[in-house]
Amino acid sequence: MALIVQKFGGTSVASVERIKSVAKKIKTFKDAGDQVVVSVSAMSGETNRMTDLAHQIQDKPSLREMDVLLTTGEQVTISLLSMALQQLGCDAISYTGSQVRITTDSEHGKARIKSIDSELIVKSLNEEKVVVIAGFQGVDEGGHITTLGRGGSDTTAVALAAALNADECQIYTDVDGVYTADPRIEPNARKMNNISYEEMLEMASLGSKVLQIRSVEFASKYNVSLRVLSSMIENPIGTLITSEEKIMEEAVISGIAHNKDEAKVSLIGVPDIPGVAYKILKPISDNNIEVDMILQSVSSKEGLANFAFTVHRNDFEESKEILEKVRSDLGALKVQSDDKIVKVSLVGIGMRSHAGIATKMFEVLHKENVNIQMISTSEIKISVAIDEKYLELAVRSLHSAFDLDKE
Amino acid sequence: MALIVQKFGGTSVASVERIKSVAKKIKTFKDAGDQVVVSVSAMSGETNRMTDLAHQIQDKPSLREMDVLLTTGEQVTISLLSMALQQLGCDAISYTGSQVRITTDSEHGKARIKSIDSELIVKSLNEEKVVVIAGFQGVDEGGHITTLGRGGSDTTAVALAAALNADECQIYTDVDGVYTADPRIEPNARKMNNISYEEMLEMASLGSKVLQIRSVEFASKYNVSLRVLSSMIENPIGTLITSEEKIMEEAVISGIAHNKDEAKVSLIGVPDIPGVAYKILKPISDNNIEVDMILQSVSSKEGLANFAFTVHRNDFEESKEILEKVRSDLGALKVQSDDKIVKVSLVGIGMRSHAGIATKMFEVLHKENVNIQMISTSEIKISVAIDEKYLELAVRSLHSAFDLDKE
Repeated sequence: MALIVQKFGGTSVASVERIKSVAKKIKTFKDAGDQVVVSVSAMSGETNRMTDLAHQIQDKPSLREMDVLLTTGEQVTISLLSMALQQLGCDAISYTGSQVRITTDSEHGKARIKSIDSELIVKSLNEEKVVVIAGFQGVDEGGHITTLGRGGSDTTAVALAAALNADECQIYTDVDGVYTADPRIEPNARKMNNISYEEMLEMASLGSKVLQIRSVEFASKYNVSLRVLSSMIENPIGTLITSEEKIMEEAVISGIAHNKDEAKVSLIGVPDIPGVAYKILKPISDNNIEVDMILQSVSSKEGLANFAFTVHRNDFEESKEILEKVRSDLGALKVQSDDKIVKVSLVGIGMRSHAGIATKMFEVLHKENVNIQMISTSEIKISVAIDEKYLELAVRSLHSAFDLDKE
Repeated sequence: MALIVQKFGGTSVASVERIKSVAKKIKTFKDAGDQVVVSVSAMSGETNRMTDLAHQIQDKPSLREMDVLLTTGEQVTISLLSMALQQLGCDAISYTGSQVRITTDSEHGKARIKSIDSELIVKSLNEEKVVVIAGFQGVDEGGHITTLGRGGSDTTAVALAAALNADECQIYTDVDGVYTADPRIEPNARKMNNISYEEMLEMASLGSKVLQIRSVEFASKYNVSLRVLSSMIENPIGTLITSEEKIMEEAVISGIAHNKDEAKVSLIGVPDIPGVAYKILKPISDNNIEVDMILQSVSSKEGLANFAFTVHRNDFEESKEILEKVRSDLGALKVQSDDKIVKVSLVGIGMRSHAGIATKMFEVLHKENVNIQMISTSEIKISVAIDEKYLELAVRSLHSAFDLDKE
């Protein structure tokens, strides 16, 4: 007998039919003797419908009242799913975030979980009930209803698993796991059976949009075994995201991530004086723009340097304007910009103990005549910025060169 | 400065436009310096929509889960109305039944309010906020969400007014008050400015469907001044329902109520032995059928009696069947039945001190050749059962004879 926390997102509970089919899936675990806690989202479409209503009243509705409004979405789902389970003869009980005291801070719309009172949940589990809990929502210490913001129901599930010391937290989604690369780009991409938290964090933040980063951080912090799997197929295995120690088959490279959301801005011909990086990046961060890759290089002209960095494409125009001002302040030659870049990253814990991964990566790209514009590295990843037209070529050649298509 | 509790039903908040117009109305009270607590229902249609979803899953959904589901309806309204008030520059805050601890018993779907914790409401009022509270819902001592059943949001408003010791509880509805008779039957019917709780209870239970009986009982118990008024017109006065002592202009007769939902069943030729009424009515009440008017009379045949009573038309067929069995047990001659009757009642506190009201009523009906089939009286009402074809004639002639059309 295991204690399992399962999370079903909005698409999985989009209709009465789908809710019934989720109930059937849950019942197979209960029938097998497991204790099951389920966290669910609003039926897909509901959140948008309610946001529309609010916007017909106010352009910028009160965040507190938006939370009161939107949390009704999951409340509808928990009641319907509990009914569907009862209809199958599977005893069930629903709880809102407030009822099980998912206590958060008071940041409406993006609250963070501080604690969960597991007493009521454990009591209901001991009564042989499936416990169905509204995801995405909580309550602050003043009793006000809060939401965790987008993707928050993944976090609810992980937090529940941590609070209950569950054996596994299963996140049901519309993909059947985490792949070695985006299968739409690399048809030979292979589903991984295991991946470490750290790798998953790199994969997720680099654009493999399977799980919310926060929920993986949370899982890592509380050592919750997290499984991503498909709600659409029977008996899925998915991908287990767990601590490094628990992974037996350790590959050098786990996967290839890419990110098409970045753009590059450069300041050319900067007088090479001390503190120049600070002077360039300070006004950028003052405007709440996040910088990812950074490159400083000596220019061809004597005593002049070039300085380049990447930002989110949403911040591209603003970054160019700021840099133009910095250019005249510093007496630099010109601003260059390019929003046709893509970042491709190799991720793998094994990299730590294997030298030469970067060399091999650059060699592969060189052979394909892919020009590398920027490089950044961490302990478990190497990223390069390249022209976006080379995306498919780079991903496929690296995938093959590092044998990612092979078990 | 007064403390006012206002209640707006589902029709008044059926759309974003109507919610905005309710907000405007509330603001006029706030601007005049009043403290305002508002209780609202779900947007009309929402409860049916959700009930449909539930019935797609279960024929008889769990009452507990139905309450979790249906209470989202008012939660949507409180958030939208709070936004609409804020948009008008009127500070507002929403609370669910759970948040302000509207504590009920655990009878899901028809719970009764036990207490309200007014602390949070008073705190918000002192912060100059309009407090918007979900009607119809509460929470039991175990923290489970409950609903008060149909019409429950009137009761919420009255209970709030009682707990807060409010100056007035205003129930906004689609009629502009309580009339001396149904205006669709008697065009000269006049809106009353005042009516006592007792009279209103008689009027309500007799078919003037303006207010839920329970909320009037509640108002009477806690001496809450209750005003029924229209949400559709500007500055309505409505009808004030209050304690007898507070009513200055005391009419002998306040109004005429009628009820078309009753049917008559009779047992003819019953041997006149002791306990016959008990033997006839016991099996009726055992089947949860409520009896209203009762008539026992000596039959024309020696030693035989007739026994007649009225029941709700929904219970007509079942009552006939039960009575048929009783007939053979008691050796009575036959069962007679008539579902073409109507009950017409004169209601008025002044009746207590005025003899001859009944005599005058019977005289008026006699003059119009309306045959009286049954009579029942209480301290403040006289009811007669008559053929339903005489309904209009009886109401109009009584209305005129008792000068109800005159101020």
